[in-house]
Formats: sequence, structure tokens, C-alpha cells
Amino acid sequence: MKIITIGREFGSGGRELGKRIADKLGIAYYDREILTEISKKTSLAEEYITQIIERKPSVQYPITIANSFGVYDSDLNKTQNKIFAEQNNVIKELASKSDCVIVGRCADYILRDQKPFRIFVYSDMASKIKRCREKGEVGADLTDKQIKRHIKAIDKHRKNYYNFYTGLDWGNKENYDIMINTSDKLIKDVVDEIVKIFK
Amino acid sequence: MKIITIGREFGSGGRELGKRIADKLGIAYYDREILTEISKKTSLAEEYITQIIERKPSVQYPITIANSFGVYDSDLNKTQNKIFAEQNNVIKELASKSDCVIVGRCADYILRDQKPFRIFVYSDMASKIKRCREKGEVGADLTDKQIKRHIKAIDKHRKNYYNFYTGLDWGNKENYDIMINTSDKLIKDVVDEIVKIFK
Repeated sequence: MKIITIGREFGSGGRELGKRIADKLGIAYYDREILTEISKKTSLAEEYITQIIERKPSVQYPITIANSFGVYDSDLNKTQNKIFAEQNNVIKELASKSDCVIVGRCADYILRDQKPFRIFVYSDMASKIKRCREKGEVGADLTDKQIKRHIKAIDKHRKNYYNFYTGLDWGNKENYDIMINTSDKLIKDVVDEIVKIFK
Repeated sequence: MKIITIGREFGSGGRELGKRIADKLGIAYYDREILTEISKKTSLAEEYITQIIERKPSVQYPITIANSFGVYDSDLNKTQNKIFAEQNNVIKELASKSDCVIVGRCADYILRDQKPFRIFVYSDMASKIKRCREKGEVGADLTDKQIKRHIKAIDKHRKNYYNFYTGLDWGNKENYDIMINTSDKLIKDVVDEIVKIFK
């Protein structure tokens, strides 16, 4: 049984890397599919779940505040915790069905008893900005500075979310089996390069 | 032309990983061989060079002090700089001859124009202590606490040495293409695992 989890900085190409690995190995790939499952189980709309899990850092404020004041039971946090609990179930269920690659969502932590192979993908800022533009993940009218702010905000949120639920430090090398730098590289070439060296 | 450089924490198995990669690829492997070359070129005894380059942190003190006071020209530092300059030449010469794996010695920085594939190998403390014992790299009579102190001192020295000569931060993910965690794993299995996933 092989479970591969992928943590990734926004714009580092982690999704594509995950897909390529899943395709090559002929195993399942889960990313947004997980939200659909949670939606079915909680009867909450998928968009609402996305909003709660991946909400913009501006509305993420309450968690941090609640945390530092020792107040955990706001309605927003109750919903977030409920969704996280459901996400736990969904991820464990998916991982028990077959070998798979799971991107994000604290899967490395949730599945820790199964000893997944934990990958973290990162990149320098210039490459992340370039990749965001090319993939059309940000508005075409944004300046580099605006994209940079957007990337930083998302990664800050990912870090807060991960650290809050796992008690570990997102992006810290201790928590991964391998860390891959995709700066100035095509994801396809990253995979080829690794294969060439370790084959 | 493929140059692979390996930075590594003491006890992380970086040497063995480098050797395995070199053997698999059928390319040259340089580690201590570099000291022998420097010895030939500088007419300094190999042991003396080792002592200067890899000297114990207790005598490494002068560099740090000299650095913070802006004093660089003590005799010790002159010798160290001379050896570093010669190491530069030797590493460039070796890398120009054929594909190779070079362990340590700021080779990633020295060869930066050739865009080497830069690996960093790390491990948790328990695994490093275990590996040091098994490889007999430390006295069999040492306690875990003593080995831990020894490992920390060597890594601190490696970091100081690397940061001093490169202006970069040793072990910081930005400076490597891939970071490999060897905690609780045999080096053989680490390579096999990566091959299995990226093949």
C-alpha cells in the first residue's frame, strides 16, 4: 500500500507534480474531489466548504484571534472544526480504498499511522509568480506585486491552517520525506531529472 | 554533463547516498579525494588540511570572532583562505573532467555556473546518533548525549564554514534542488523509495 501526500507552496506546481506521479504510477489522485465528498457527507454546499477551508486570509482572522484568546467556540470555528473532522474521515476512507496521491489538506498528518511518503514542493517567488500567470490562476490584469501579495497570503493561510490542526510546522523539512524545489523548472523536467539521478 | 553535489548533516548518511548514486550512474565520486589533491598542490600535509578545513568547533572560534570584528588576516585565516582557494581549483578541475558526485566542501556554490543538481540530506537526531554508532564514526564508549553534542558541533561548524564562504545559508531549502530526509530509513531504501515513486 502506497500513499503519497503532497504539501505545496501556492504556485510551486505541486498539483501538477502530484498528478504526474499519480498518472505514472497508475494510482488515484485526490485534490478537490475531497471537497465534493465532504459536501455529500455534511450537506454543506461545496462552495461554502471551500470558503471555510480555503478562505482568504482577511476572513481567516477569527481563528488566529480566537486561538490567542483561548476562545474556540465561535460558530465559524465550530463549522471549520466540523469540516475538518469530516475531511479526516473522507481522507482516511479514500486512503483505505487504494494507493493514491493526496494533495494538501493535512493528509500527511491525518494519515500518519499509515506512514505515507510525504512530499513538499516549493519554489522561489519569481517562479511562483510566473507559474501563476501561465496557469491563469490569477487575474491577467494583476501586477507582479499584487500576485506576490496574493501568493504570500495564501501560503500564510496554508501555514496557519496546517499548524493549527496538526501542531506541526508547515514547510519545515522535519515533517517531509522529500522536499522538491521547482524554481526555474518545468514540472515535467523536475520528475525526469529525479528519475535520471536515482534510477 | 551532470554534476551532483551533496550537502549533508553529520550522521544523515549523505556520504553513502552519494556513493550509491555515483555507483548507479557509473560516475566519479569525490569526497576525501579532494583533500589529497589539495595536499599535492599546496604541499601541506593532508592531516593538516583536514584539521584546518574540518577543525573542531572549539578551535573554529577565531573565524567567527575575526568575522564579527572585521579582522580577516590572522595566520590561521590566511591558511584557511588559501586552502579554500585551492579547493575551488581542485573542485572545478574535477568537475570539468567528467560527470561526478561531490560531497560537501561548498561544491554546490563553487560550481554554481554549471548548475549542478544540489541535494541536501538530513535526518532527525535519534537516527543520526544511531547511524554514527553503527558506522563507528564515534567512540563506542560515548553516551548518546555525548554523540549528540558531537553531531551538533560538527553541523554547527559545517554551517559556519558554508555560510562564511558562500554567503548562503547551509541547509536552507532555497539553496538545494532536493532535500532528502533519511530519518528511520536505510540509505538503500531511501534510494529505492524515490525510484519507485518517480520512475
